Amino acid sequence: MTLATETVAFGTLYAQVQQFYAEQMHMLDDGDADGWAATFTEDGTFTPPRAAQPVRGPADLAAGVRRAHAERAAGGVTHRHWHGMLAVTPRTADSVDVRCYALVIASAAGGASHVHAACVCTDVLVRREDRWLVADRKVTRDGL
Amino acid sequence: MTLATETVAFGTLYAQVQQFYAEQMHMLDDGDADGWAATFTEDGTFTPPRAAQPVRGPADLAAGVRRAHAERAAGGVTHRHWHGMLAVTPRTADSVDVRCYALVIASAAGGASHVHAACVCTDVLVRREDRWLVADRKVTRDGL
Amino acid sequence: MTLATETVAFGTLYAQVQQFYAEQMHMLDDGDADGWAATFTEDGTFTPPRAAQPVRGPADLAAGVRRAHAERAAGGVTHRHWHGMLAVTPRTADSVDVRCYALVIASAAGGASHVHAACVCTDVLVRREDRWLVADRKVTRDGL
Repeated sequence: MTLATETVAFGTLYAQVQQFYAEQMHMLDDGDADGWAATFTEDGTFTPPRAAQPVRGPADLAAGVRRAHAERAAGGVTHRHWHGMLAVTPRTADSVDVRCYALVIASAAGGASHVHAACVCTDVLVRREDRWLVADRKVTRDGL
Repeated sequence: MTLATETVAFGTLYAQVQQFYAEQMHMLDDGDADGWAATFTEDGTFTPPRAAQPVRGPADLAAGVRRAHAERAAGGVTHRHWHGMLAVTPRTADSVDVRCYALVIASAAGGASHVHAACVCTDVLVRREDRWLVADRKVTRDGL
Repeated sequence: MTLATETVAFGTLYAQVQQFYAEQMHMLDDGDADGWAATFTEDGTFTPPRAAQPVRGPADLAAGVRRAHAERAAGGVTHRHWHGMLAVTPRTADSVDVRCYALVIASAAGGASHVHAACVCTDVLVRREDRWLVADRKVTRDGL
């Protein structure tokens, strides 16, 4: 029953992608730079808003996160990255395209919070054994 | 095993509704007025906050989106519609009620973002072949 | 096929947890204090940000919600609680750990909205017959 199988698979896949983003962003916001970098493939690329070229590979990915997190910590600022409105498009049994929205919520010492940035994230995710990893991520920021 | 079947079906259904909203709101925010209007049934209705009566049918639905998107584009403003906190209640094999929250995040040229509106959306979705469509949508805005 | 079964179950479970939070927060924000309190176990505990000790049991849980909702209503303020970025970790067939983000969006009379609080919520959920209930919830607020 091909159709039923595919239908079930979509629900499972969608949940896996949501879980993947949750775990990935928890690591990012907790300052676990190496853990976050390990959610990309070995040659995975990340193109942040306005970057001239992508950041590539775990060492450079982790370095960027470590620096940004230290700056925020020094300023008493917490960031929370929310992915939502996920459009998940299977490509092969082991790769999917995702286009989703991404909010960054910033909170200052004392508890005042605001929307720091509204972004659109375009991902190519690939399955390695039983994990999803980012092969390529491009993020644009609204208004820039 | 009726129960197991139903349990599996709920996970699939929930993912389908999330995917539907993602695709629908991407079209809305990208200014694809006709694509967005085609996510309603032929006689589908949409009652926005404070509207005296619903907008009905693809032509009027698309016209409203086209106008609003052009106004925002002229002002350099980007809107992102987020649906979340979905309570999905199956009615028949081919229709579901959804009550969810809806945020509109606005970003100005330069990148400053804020919560433009917090809303509650009540939908009747119906299945046509392998797609979900909105048969009726009512949106209220908090504070109005 | 253990793996396939587990994979399907995860998609179902993830959807159930999302639906549970949606229904629970709709009750909270609608001021249905008793309905909300009934989403905790009989001896369920809730530790809000900066609380010296947890609130325990339906009567005290409901009283806190009733009081807070009345204060907001008197001031013309609406709160919407958003859970997102759910990391769902099954513990047994009938209990899961969840770590997620929680936003509180506040809207004033007239319709102006803002991010009131950005929080992290850590839940232990347990299954009772065919419902999920909160056995323990701890919430921390960013910046505090």
